[in-house]
Amino acid sequence: MVKGKRFIYAKAFEGEPNLDNFKLEEFNLPRLENGAVLCEAIFVSVDPYIRAFMNQYPIGTKIIGTQIAKVIDSRNPKYPVSSIICGDFGWQSHTVFVENGGNDIIPLTNFKSVPHSYALSCLGMPGVTAYFGFLEICRPQPGETVVITTAAGAVGCLVGQIAKIKQCKVIGFTGADDKCEWLVKECGFDYAFNYKTCDILQTLKNAAPNGIDCYFDNVGGEISSLIISQMNEFGRVSICGTISSYNTDLNDMPKAPAIQPLIIHKNIKLEGFACFRWNHRRSEAIKTMMKWIKEGKIKYKETITQGFENIPTAFIEMLKGKNIGKAIVKI
Amino acid sequence: MVKGKRFIYAKAFEGEPNLDNFKLEEFNLPRLENGAVLCEAIFVSVDPYIRAFMNQYPIGTKIIGTQIAKVIDSRNPKYPVSSIICGDFGWQSHTVFVENGGNDIIPLTNFKSVPHSYALSCLGMPGVTAYFGFLEICRPQPGETVVITTAAGAVGCLVGQIAKIKQCKVIGFTGADDKCEWLVKECGFDYAFNYKTCDILQTLKNAAPNGIDCYFDNVGGEISSLIISQMNEFGRVSICGTISSYNTDLNDMPKAPAIQPLIIHKNIKLEGFACFRWNHRRSEAIKTMMKWIKEGKIKYKETITQGFENIPTAFIEMLKGKNIGKAIVKI
Repeated sequence: MVKGKRFIYAKAFEGEPNLDNFKLEEFNLPRLENGAVLCEAIFVSVDPYIRAFMNQYPIGTKIIGTQIAKVIDSRNPKYPVSSIICGDFGWQSHTVFVENGGNDIIPLTNFKSVPHSYALSCLGMPGVTAYFGFLEICRPQPGETVVITTAAGAVGCLVGQIAKIKQCKVIGFTGADDKCEWLVKECGFDYAFNYKTCDILQTLKNAAPNGIDCYFDNVGGEISSLIISQMNEFGRVSICGTISSYNTDLNDMPKAPAIQPLIIHKNIKLEGFACFRWNHRRSEAIKTMMKWIKEGKIKYKETITQGFENIPTAFIEMLKGKNIGKAIVKI
Repeated sequence: MVKGKRFIYAKAFEGEPNLDNFKLEEFNLPRLENGAVLCEAIFVSVDPYIRAFMNQYPIGTKIIGTQIAKVIDSRNPKYPVSSIICGDFGWQSHTVFVENGGNDIIPLTNFKSVPHSYALSCLGMPGVTAYFGFLEICRPQPGETVVITTAAGAVGCLVGQIAKIKQCKVIGFTGADDKCEWLVKECGFDYAFNYKTCDILQTLKNAAPNGIDCYFDNVGGEISSLIISQMNEFGRVSICGTISSYNTDLNDMPKAPAIQPLIIHKNIKLEGFACFRWNHRRSEAIKTMMKWIKEGKIKYKETITQGFENIPTAFIEMLKGKNIGKAIVKI
C-alpha cells in the first residue's frame, strides 16, 4: 500500500501565518478502482488566496492548493502512466482521483517547450488572472499610463508586460530594489519603485505627470488611496487582491483614506474580480500567453523552494514578499 | 441704474460652513448692450456640490449655483421680457447675460403644468443625476434589491422611485423618522430606516435577506462599507456623493474600513460619476421624468426657504440634513 504525506490546517490563521498553523501527516492511499488514477506531486503552488480562503475550512482539513503531478499508476486510459497533469489536490504528495467530468484536472499535453511549473504561474491561474483581470476590466489603450502594485509578484509582472504589449507606459511598485531592477531590465517596465523607501505621492507625480489611466491593484490599503488620487478622468481600477489586509480579520478591516471622494468627479470605475469569472474563456488566455512567451514578449521568473516539507515555509515567505515572480515548491 | 445683490465667498470653508463664510454685497448692473438680457432671480438652488467645489475659487468670488430667473429687460428676441429661464448665475439677485452659444441657459418654455422650481430639482440637475447615475451605472433588473443613502434628499428620493418603476425592491437610509415615513408612504419605498437610530448591519440583514444588488451611494464613509459588505455577486455601486466627507480636507480624508476586500470575491463594480457626463442626453432624462411626474409615478417634495438674505442659512441647514427633497430658496 502506498503512503502519502499531506499538510493539514492545524491551527486557525490569526495575523501572519507561522509554522504552527500546519501539521504534516502521513495517510494511506486507497487501492485503485477501475477509472482511478494515482499521481505524485512534482510542483506544489503556494498562493496568497490560501491565506484568504483557508479560514473558511474546519481545522484538520488538508490545505488547499494546486499542483503539477505525474501519473504513476492508472486504471484510466485518458491518464496513462508518466503523463503530467495539473489539479487542485492541495498540499499532498500523492493523490488518487476519479475523473468527475469537471475541468479541474488539466493534462499538460501542450506544455512541450515550456516548463511544467508554468501551469501554476504564467500559464495557469496567475496568468489567466493577469490576462482577463487587466484586459477586460482596465481595457487599456495605447499611450495610457498603467500602475501596478505587487508588480514583481506572480500576477503583477505579467500585467506590466501585457500592458507594454498594448503600448502603455508602465509603472510598478514593489518592495525590494532587486525586484525593481528585474522589472525594468528584464520585464521592460518604464519605471519600478520600492514603495518601502520612496515618497509614493511625489514619485507618482514625477513618473506619471499626465496622470494614471489604469491601476491594477493587488494590495488595497493606503497606497491604493494615493494611487487613485492621481488618476485621470474615466480611469479604471482592476481590484485583484488586497494583500495588505489578508492577515486581518474581515470583520475588523484596516481603515484607509476613503476613496469615494477621489472617484466621483473623475468618473472613475473600480471593479473587483475573481478569475473564475472567465473560466469559460481560460484557453484563450493560455493560448495567447503561450504565444507571447514563445515570442519572447513575456519574460517570467519563479522562486522555487525545494522539498515537500518546506511548503509551509515557502508559503510564509511568499506572504512576506520574499519571492520574485511565482512562488512554487518543487517536490 | 439697476442695483443687484449677491453673496460672495468671504472666508474659506473649514469644517461645517457658517454664516461668516458669506458676505452680502450690492453691485451695479451694466447697461444692456445689443443682444444682452437682464433677469431677476425667482428661485436659487443650494446644493451639496457648492461645499465641495467652492474651495477651488478665490476669496471674493460670487458663490456658484443655479437659479430660475425671470427676464425683466431684453435686447435679445430669444429671451422676451417675462420669459422664465434657468442659468448658472450663482447666488445673486439680478444678472445681465449675453448668450455665448453654450447650453448653460435653458428657457423653461415646456414647464407649463409643473412648478418652475422643478428645473432646480426633479427636472433639473438632481433629476438628471438620479436618472443616469442610477440607470446607466447600476443597470437595475426587475426583482433586484436597491439600497440608497441620503434617500430623502433631492436625488435619493428620485432614485428610489425610479427603482420602483423598474420593479426593484427599494431600501432607503435617511436621518429622520418623518423622512422615513414620507419615503414609504408617499414615495413607495419598501423600507426606509433612520441610520442614526438603527443597527445598520442587522437592519440590512433583515430587510435584504437575499443581499443587495445595487447601491446608490450619496454619503461614502462607514455606512457605505457596511452596505457594500452585504452585496451580492456582480453587485453595482453608483457613487454619486460623499457628503460624509464634504466638510473634511481632501488631503486628510476620513478613514473608513477598506472596501477592496469586500468587492473582490463578489466581482462588485463601483463607479463614481459627475452628471455632466450625460449632458448630451439631458433632454432624454428630463422628458422621461416629466412623463413619470405627470403620470403620478414620481412624487416630489421641495423644502423652500423664503428670502434672498436667507440663502446661506438654507445652504447650511441643507448640509445638516434639515431638508426633505430639494432645498431651494424663493426670492
